[in-house]
Amino acid sequence: MVDILHRVGVIASPDAVYTALTTIDGLSGWWTEKTTSAGDDVIRFRFDRPQGEDGFDMKVLKTVPGELVHWEVVAGPEEWIGTHVRFQLKQEDDYTIVLFSQEGWKEPVEFMYHCSTKWGTFLMSLKELVETGAGKPAPDDVQISNWH
Amino acid sequence: MVDILHRVGVIASPDAVYTALTTIDGLSGWWTEKTTSAGDDVIRFRFDRPQGEDGFDMKVLKTVPGELVHWEVVAGPEEWIGTHVRFQLKQEDDYTIVLFSQEGWKEPVEFMYHCSTKWGTFLMSLKELVETGAGKPAPDDVQISNWH
Repeated sequence: MVDILHRVGVIASPDAVYTALTTIDGLSGWWTEKTTSAGDDVIRFRFDRPQGEDGFDMKVLKTVPGELVHWEVVAGPEEWIGTHVRFQLKQEDDYTIVLFSQEGWKEPVEFMYHCSTKWGTFLMSLKELVETGAGKPAPDDVQISNWH
Repeated sequence: MVDILHRVGVIASPDAVYTALTTIDGLSGWWTEKTTSAGDDVIRFRFDRPQGEDGFDMKVLKTVPGELVHWEVVAGPEEWIGTHVRFQLKQEDDYTIVLFSQEGWKEPVEFMYHCSTKWGTFLMSLKELVETGAGKPAPDDVQISNWH
């Protein structure tokens, strides 16, 4: 079992970051514009690819205002299903620190290398959204390679 | 033991990316301007911090032109010493794919979360350098948090 880890600091309150992680409006402002509620505490994230639409469904397992957002991947690429995504928040000086993890990858496959870098750029998009009002969600996300 | 993994694609030849990973001029164009040779196959990377200069010394263990660069960290923060850094290169369409790893972290400490995100932004700087001629090396690197 291997994990993806990241740490970014957002110059904003924990509540502002928490809102960007727990509302459709917030999530669609930094990850993908195609974010919808699928009921039953499931959030649906979709991406337009050359080969058609794909994406992830996240079951919200736990939220603690200003402190924690915890999802489980319930639909998406096989390698993602059953992994857990956590955003832990804490305040340090003027920053809200986001400790991010996607835990439970079975193998460090090449797709995991890709997702690690993509999560990094999306977390920078989260930082930008909360700090400036505009992030870089898909389809206008930062392209890092031939896999987009 | 836990690892940092990343994947980026550079629109350039494997040789161009390899040069950016194996020459002082290349390395100082994407990671830190304070890059020097310390003899004996050791490369010295330094960063100016508010508390003074710090950084890493890398022993070059293996290089295969256009394919692989493999370092061992021989000086630097305690958590880094003994870890191995690998850049594996391969060509796909118009891209040179860089599979990056920093292997052998003893524990997933908060500093590892930070370094994972920083490596991601530095690899994007590598991509930018090779594609456009200008990267974002320290001290002008992308700030991701209060830890810079």
